Amino acid sequence: MIFRGLIRSKFSANQKLFRSIRNIFGFYPDNIFLYKLALRHKSATKKKINGLKINNERLEYLGDAILGAVVADYLFKRFPYKNEGFLTEMRSKIVSRSSLNKLSLKLGLEKLILSDADPNYRPKSAGGDAFEAIIGAIYLDKGYYFTRRTIITRILNLHYDLEDLVDTEISYKSRVIEWAQKEKKDLSFKVVQEIGEKQNKQFKVALIVDEHTITESIDYSIKGAEKIAAEKGWYLLTPQS
Amino acid sequence: MIFRGLIRSKFSANQKLFRSIRNIFGFYPDNIFLYKLALRHKSATKKKINGLKINNERLEYLGDAILGAVVADYLFKRFPYKNEGFLTEMRSKIVSRSSLNKLSLKLGLEKLILSDADPNYRPKSAGGDAFEAIIGAIYLDKGYYFTRRTIITRILNLHYDLEDLVDTEISYKSRVIEWAQKEKKDLSFKVVQEIGEKQNKQFKVALIVDEHTITESIDYSIKGAEKIAAEKGWYLLTPQS
Repeated sequence: MIFRGLIRSKFSANQKLFRSIRNIFGFYPDNIFLYKLALRHKSATKKKINGLKINNERLEYLGDAILGAVVADYLFKRFPYKNEGFLTEMRSKIVSRSSLNKLSLKLGLEKLILSDADPNYRPKSAGGDAFEAIIGAIYLDKGYYFTRRTIITRILNLHYDLEDLVDTEISYKSRVIEWAQKEKKDLSFKVVQEIGEKQNKQFKVALIVDEHTITESIDYSIKGAEKIAAEKGWYLLTPQS
Repeated sequence: MIFRGLIRSKFSANQKLFRSIRNIFGFYPDNIFLYKLALRHKSATKKKINGLKINNERLEYLGDAILGAVVADYLFKRFPYKNEGFLTEMRSKIVSRSSLNKLSLKLGLEKLILSDADPNYRPKSAGGDAFEAIIGAIYLDKGYYFTRRTIITRILNLHYDLEDLVDTEISYKSRVIEWAQKEKKDLSFKVVQEIGEKQNKQFKVALIVDEHTITESIDYSIKGAEKIAAEKGWYLLTPQS
């Protein structure tokens, strides 16, 4: 496999990209065209084929899902005694747009992106998008387990300090409270309904800002419901563009 | 493998569950305990081990990610000329909570769930959660490609009509417009900024309700920006519990 890649790289007009992929991810591509496509930002969209614009958006969609699965699996096994709330939050931090954009810069992937956009106007997310698209390309080119190994050995083990990430756990509750203080709003959580009985009891909690109910959430614990309401509220109160 | 499973099923106290999994998914489990855990709703949480509550929530987290990857891959290959917006929307419809809850009922998985909750108060999502947890169990028990084949042959091919799903494509734009009519609000989309030049130009579009800006989105086309703003707006305007 490696040998085949090697030979192709010698004769390929895409020799530079071959070498870059080898340097960043540790292997030679079989189908170099997948990687070229993965690096084609939508601002550099090529002609349409059957009405489909040729850029990296489809591969990004695929890679996002594959990356999510690999990271979920990795954290599941790495933290056998942590609950799903912890695992979900850790994963969000690893695959967040800003985290992947930084990663793309560190890897030098950013420089390989083919884009027609004025760098000043190019969305910052182009780097993270290209990284995800490359994951999609690796998956199609080499399969799931190869992609998984590459992500773990080349990305997670080298570029993420999990202990560090644990410490910087983001609490949405503290975020919305901070937001309210800054905006001089009155923010509170209120149990508005109790559903069921005894150990099966669930609580409906409302997140209230200046007497308006922003969102409601239900969970088996008040703390849990507050946490979910805070997370939903955070996105409602601070629309992300 | 099948033989080993068969022998185990004969001698196992979990014979009924063995047969149920065989009937629903077409294979015998190797590690039946994973499947038992996948069917343990959080209302039937067993004693804690190392501070971790023993129920299906961790497996659900894992299964959700694996299911997402398999469905993403499947749609990517099934619709080679559709853009990522279409693929994302199709996937959302397939793995939506309500879709998975219905699936769980159809499969008869619902009846296997171990729960202490009064059925009247048991969240409807328990079925979909258990389905995702079972996917997590299959992944740990049999690996990615086995899980992928099972999802495609036993779930997607049998229980989803993709042509039908395409037709029922949800438009967030029509949803928010409908909502505004019902609520007697004045809703409009407005281009508030143009960024960059020529074919790299991006548009910032605001979703405005009764003169309040609800959210803003940026895209390379006005239509695209409106679509994203509509989707974000939908969740902001109609908080889901």
